[in-house]
Amino acid sequence: MSHLTDIEIARAARAKPIQDIGASLGIPPEHLLPYGHDKAKVDQGFITSLSDRPNGKLILVTAINPTPAGEGKTTTTVGLGDGLSRIGKKAAICIREASLGPNFGMKGGAAGGGHAQVIPMEDMNLHFTGDFHAITSAHNLLSAMIDNHIYWGNELEIDERRVVWRRVLDMNDRALRDVVTSLGGVANGFPRQTGFDITVASEVMAILCLASDLQDLQRRLGDMIVAYRRDRSPIYARDLKADGAMTVLLKDAMQPNLVQTLEHTPAFVHGGPFANIAHGCNSVIATTTALKLADYVVTEAGFGADLGAEKFMNIKCRKAGLSPDCVVLVATIRAMKMNGGVAKADLGAENVSAVESGCANLGRHIENLKSFGVPVVVGINHFTGDTEAEIAAVQAYVAGQGAEAVVCCHWAEGSRGITDLATRVAALADSGQAQFAPLYGDEMPLFDKIDCIAKRIYRADEVLAPTAIRDQLRAWEEAGYGHLPICMAKTQYSFSTDPNLRGAPTGHSLPVREVRLSAGAGFVVAICGDIMTMPGLPRVPSAEKIMLNDAGAVTGLF
Amino acid sequence: MSHLTDIEIARAARAKPIQDIGASLGIPPEHLLPYGHDKAKVDQGFITSLSDRPNGKLILVTAINPTPAGEGKTTTTVGLGDGLSRIGKKAAICIREASLGPNFGMKGGAAGGGHAQVIPMEDMNLHFTGDFHAITSAHNLLSAMIDNHIYWGNELEIDERRVVWRRVLDMNDRALRDVVTSLGGVANGFPRQTGFDITVASEVMAILCLASDLQDLQRRLGDMIVAYRRDRSPIYARDLKADGAMTVLLKDAMQPNLVQTLEHTPAFVHGGPFANIAHGCNSVIATTTALKLADYVVTEAGFGADLGAEKFMNIKCRKAGLSPDCVVLVATIRAMKMNGGVAKADLGAENVSAVESGCANLGRHIENLKSFGVPVVVGINHFTGDTEAEIAAVQAYVAGQGAEAVVCCHWAEGSRGITDLATRVAALADSGQAQFAPLYGDEMPLFDKIDCIAKRIYRADEVLAPTAIRDQLRAWEEAGYGHLPICMAKTQYSFSTDPNLRGAPTGHSLPVREVRLSAGAGFVVAICGDIMTMPGLPRVPSAEKIMLNDAGAVTGLF
Repeated sequence: MSHLTDIEIARAARAKPIQDIGASLGIPPEHLLPYGHDKAKVDQGFITSLSDRPNGKLILVTAINPTPAGEGKTTTTVGLGDGLSRIGKKAAICIREASLGPNFGMKGGAAGGGHAQVIPMEDMNLHFTGDFHAITSAHNLLSAMIDNHIYWGNELEIDERRVVWRRVLDMNDRALRDVVTSLGGVANGFPRQTGFDITVASEVMAILCLASDLQDLQRRLGDMIVAYRRDRSPIYARDLKADGAMTVLLKDAMQPNLVQTLEHTPAFVHGGPFANIAHGCNSVIATTTALKLADYVVTEAGFGADLGAEKFMNIKCRKAGLSPDCVVLVATIRAMKMNGGVAKADLGAENVSAVESGCANLGRHIENLKSFGVPVVVGINHFTGDTEAEIAAVQAYVAGQGAEAVVCCHWAEGSRGITDLATRVAALADSGQAQFAPLYGDEMPLFDKIDCIAKRIYRADEVLAPTAIRDQLRAWEEAGYGHLPICMAKTQYSFSTDPNLRGAPTGHSLPVREVRLSAGAGFVVAICGDIMTMPGLPRVPSAEKIMLNDAGAVTGLF
Repeated sequence: MSHLTDIEIARAARAKPIQDIGASLGIPPEHLLPYGHDKAKVDQGFITSLSDRPNGKLILVTAINPTPAGEGKTTTTVGLGDGLSRIGKKAAICIREASLGPNFGMKGGAAGGGHAQVIPMEDMNLHFTGDFHAITSAHNLLSAMIDNHIYWGNELEIDERRVVWRRVLDMNDRALRDVVTSLGGVANGFPRQTGFDITVASEVMAILCLASDLQDLQRRLGDMIVAYRRDRSPIYARDLKADGAMTVLLKDAMQPNLVQTLEHTPAFVHGGPFANIAHGCNSVIATTTALKLADYVVTEAGFGADLGAEKFMNIKCRKAGLSPDCVVLVATIRAMKMNGGVAKADLGAENVSAVESGCANLGRHIENLKSFGVPVVVGINHFTGDTEAEIAAVQAYVAGQGAEAVVCCHWAEGSRGITDLATRVAALADSGQAQFAPLYGDEMPLFDKIDCIAKRIYRADEVLAPTAIRDQLRAWEEAGYGHLPICMAKTQYSFSTDPNLRGAPTGHSLPVREVRLSAGAGFVVAICGDIMTMPGLPRVPSAEKIMLNDAGAVTGLF
């Protein structure tokens, strides 16, 4: 058992030179663009040269609905990558990058935990390789070009009241949520009300994560709707001739970042779109590159499986032509207990019946995931207090669902503790069982797609949407956007829109409050609850404690 | 003669691996943090280990007042570095980084020109190593912490009307000059009027460029005044506990960037403060590091010698304990003609008498520079149309001033064309002639310092400053800021505040419009004219033409 904190374990690790990690995947050093000694980008030209190679197996790690007890989805993703390496497989993992801003509010996060982490931890919580800064620049260049166009005569006839493109910063700054710009007289333009979102909420982020290459990136950037005319006709980023310069700003950011786990498994850490108003997965280009270079690629999706895995399947896999070979559903005994009604303070005591009743949440996720045609295995992320009886209860339940639950101790033991799951996952992925298909077809009407997700994944009885929303969806269908998938934005804590409704609720409705068109990213966002796109700082922000110590190391960030 | 453009020459160059460039300065590869294959940062620990080494010679390149004819200050800095290398000296150059935002308005700039350039040119005009993004983040974190402090109860009693700390973006965006933030109700804070500057105008930028190390950086960041109370007492960044986290955000940015010239002379490109409201020089840490690693370090200052060299001497050298060994004053025959009253359209024709009368500007700069106790040599940056008679006229004039004017053809010929100047500069620097002293002592009252610069450098008859400004200066003296140097902000085109007054004007006055205290950077800014701290985009911004071509190369940026 480890008694060290994540950061202590991470700092004690000896990273291999990133060229060695690249070499383990067959990337020649000239095609690896180093950022310091332990981070690199993989050169775009090299990626292009891989196109004829066969793909490795794609393994998705997802989880039950999150509870305050913690599930360890990323920890399991990292541990499984190390476990596959340990049993002799050529493995890589793909996860998202962290946003800078939130680290100054609450403490920054490890990528994984215990003995299953990705390093270098500080860099990944600070500027890393600058991708998010590039997205901020590209996004705000477009913003400046919109106001500049209006300033110089507004040839495109932009309705200043209908500019939907805001600005972004990678900072938690509530003062910027709602602002009036262009005050101060003639030389500063036409005053209008607008605001800032956090960078990860930018459509540019979603696009970077869905684009297959730089040409596709530029096409999608051009497709973004930035404003409307008085007649409601849309104005695209392409109309402002912003797409080329934005692509130039993003050309380095499009190249996936390579780092390593504590056990030196290659880790692609690239892109980080919101999991609510966007799809919440690492970049397509990182995943497709990893699939060309490794035999087994372990990746994860945001939130619980009802949101994250659904969007991974219906948005990312559909759009990128990816086909998952196996899904790992992460659960913990503690989370099962909370789903069974136990309060956080009481998690320490054995409670088999609570575990059993909490398994309903797990069971529904298994059923949902199987409906995509992909074999599922449950990974029980082991905590010290878990009892044998509790574990046996979960395993029996999962067996009853036609799946298997495997206990993993990677947090405490690293790869040694997860060889069983790795062996099972490799066997499932190699079995050819997977017959992946998205939940709905492209041709299904937009409202029906929402209805399909609500009923088949959330098990809601009905979708509540005002006429204005249904009309808007129909208008987008007429404008040629009917083939797009839906990006659901709802609470991650429940199948329903009520975050307190744990387990496997039925009899609920799904109220759709708003719909948004992300024409460049290529999805329609259905907002079912409050979505905050610019966080604030807490009363005592963690920034107050973050500093360099006398040895020059960062303290207070974790 | 070269018929290629700067970008064509730069793209044809074969960069050496940055590790080879580091090795030529004795930097072991483990202390060089690469950013791709042709850029690197020099590790802070390695820099610290150099402290006992002797310094090389410091050579400042400055220029006459700029004219539309062009002077080629950076080109000469680069060429002189290559020239010193060619004559067998261990040389390095130190120049500023370029700002990202302006490239999307007007075309980006080469660092140098012709056969005297620093590469990689595209990277230096785009994100480079992310330093400016780090400054943007650090600056805006402080902004967010100010509004957050007010939001949560305003324990420090910040007067919301007297928040002087604005926000920054590295973007030309006039719509952000003057904004109202925190609209939208209780959850978003207290509305107030504020604005954004471009990142290079941030006091954080000036501080990064003046700090000797990370401890000094944090101390200076803490010293910044961000707001005042109703009783006018100042509130410092330290009061908000922002200095530690800002330092963490800047820890990589503080490490100087190493690149190379076309001829592989090591080039430190680091920092880029405004040359008006700040001092306009590359970072102290880059210069001091270069001095430990090279025998001759060639650096430059912004604008003409009246502003740039004056601030280099009185601010940077004074604060960093640097002592220049030789100054190169760059002039062109064309610029002499314009100072002699010739219009730009007529520059093609030989005009010895105009050259002779224009030499007055050159002469005054020579006299001023000598007053700092440093030997001066004039570098005539050769243009194709210059005639022998015109060159002879300048050389005769300069000889009459007790100095020498050397013709250099580095633009067309690279190092081969500048060996004469390099030889002369090395001899002067080695001669021990330099007896550097700043123009005024620390103890001189603030107003007298302004008066001293106005009379001894600009040759103004008087300083015009309203009582309020004189009172403000006295108040700062009482608050303990009387020892600070002055940072003059005036037009670069004339010794006077009238940009059209070329040559060596006399009989003018210096009106001071405003004074600002940069308590962290450590200077008092005297503003004598209009200073724009957030540029706008032109009617047809260059961004419209910037894109990747089919080969993946950037077009339209240059």
